[in-house]
Amino acid sequence: MPRYRLTIEYDGSGYNGFQTQAGQPTVQGAIEMALKAFCGESIRIAAAGRTDTGVHATGQVVSFDLEKAWPSRTVMNALNAYLIEEEVSVLDCAEVDPEWHARFSATGRKYLYRILNRPGRPALDLGRVWHMKKALDADAMHEAAQALVGLHDFTTFRDVNCQSKSPEKTLDVARVTRVGEEVHLVFEARSFLHRQVRSMTGSLVEVGLGRWSADDLKAALEAKDRAACGPVAPSDGLYLTGVTY
Amino acid sequence: MPRYRLTIEYDGSGYNGFQTQAGQPTVQGAIEMALKAFCGESIRIAAAGRTDTGVHATGQVVSFDLEKAWPSRTVMNALNAYLIEEEVSVLDCAEVDPEWHARFSATGRKYLYRILNRPGRPALDLGRVWHMKKALDADAMHEAAQALVGLHDFTTFRDVNCQSKSPEKTLDVARVTRVGEEVHLVFEARSFLHRQVRSMTGSLVEVGLGRWSADDLKAALEAKDRAACGPVAPSDGLYLTGVTY
Repeated sequence: MPRYRLTIEYDGSGYNGFQTQAGQPTVQGAIEMALKAFCGESIRIAAAGRTDTGVHATGQVVSFDLEKAWPSRTVMNALNAYLIEEEVSVLDCAEVDPEWHARFSATGRKYLYRILNRPGRPALDLGRVWHMKKALDADAMHEAAQALVGLHDFTTFRDVNCQSKSPEKTLDVARVTRVGEEVHLVFEARSFLHRQVRSMTGSLVEVGLGRWSADDLKAALEAKDRAACGPVAPSDGLYLTGVTY
Repeated sequence: MPRYRLTIEYDGSGYNGFQTQAGQPTVQGAIEMALKAFCGESIRIAAAGRTDTGVHATGQVVSFDLEKAWPSRTVMNALNAYLIEEEVSVLDCAEVDPEWHARFSATGRKYLYRILNRPGRPALDLGRVWHMKKALDADAMHEAAQALVGLHDFTTFRDVNCQSKSPEKTLDVARVTRVGEEVHLVFEARSFLHRQVRSMTGSLVEVGLGRWSADDLKAALEAKDRAACGPVAPSDGLYLTGVTY
């Protein structure tokens, strides 16, 4: 059976997260519905990252098998046609090795967190950014964020419902930059704990507001205690932007 | 009576244009409703550009008088509070000279047209970009666009319902650039004819697709004939980004 890889974009605002839940609109549900409409098969897809409710993606990757070997362009166009009422779009489709797996073959995930940092609330990007009225010191955030890079026990920045066996992860990149009226936080790692990016972002915002020092952030990490985490950033500003293999 | 200037952002998708129309949701209607809720007065606002249905703004400017002199910060915060259910946001508010007028004092308007130029349809920017699957030659578009700069009779690029007395306008800037997956067209002039930007954009896309040469575009301009215009670009990708005074 031929295996396919899709690169997917979605606006997570209208979905109860990526993963299928009975009776709830999900991104996985939308894609599997489109696959069923296309080829009549009930297919279960695998994804590189199971994003939470309200989280967006510009570079989610999924894989699945089809019974028949369709040209990848046909699969892409058909799925986009069946997804026309959804806020999900297929950006790319390719046939891949049957051993290849969107989740297990992944060697890195990249997330972007967008903060709109201005007095006026967003009209055009409502639901797609976290709006912060007070000025953030992006340089201070970037400097503090470097303490998170490397192999650490991220218990502080892990949701209490996280099902990962170990709280130890290696964060490869933590970069905070000002882009016009926005502050962008980019994080790269082989994998992340549940709500790790939003937890780190919320704590870094405390630094950006001058409420925490870089040392406070380091102490929070070293506490290995969920209670030491700052307020968790909302889902609105979070994007899965890419997966490496 | 003190006069105020507001800078406004809006997602035009849900509005029947800027200008008040009985029984229709409009941007002007939303702002005047918020002003009435704030101070109880029925105020008619003036705007730098009366954008069409579906057209967006990141830098629309409006002016109006209030009976009482409120601090400009109070006006901005109150209006944003009353606009919370709308896709309209006040970015800035200032008290201005009573002679100053958002429309008549304006010396320049700046528009951006965003084309998403990739095979996959937009999921995140649906309604906010014009989606073109075929690759556009942005350099060819930019080169051809220079024929539009200067003082011309823009009859070709003017809607048949345009109410401007003269079809002559001076286009100061026409710039086409590729920005990642998007092609951006920027136009600046003292003022524009009705649908001029969308008409010029649609014709420049013919150049970008290789269907028209730069000479064809020039010939269309010189024809001074609406029938010589290419397909008019949809409202989705158009933004009023700024006004100069």
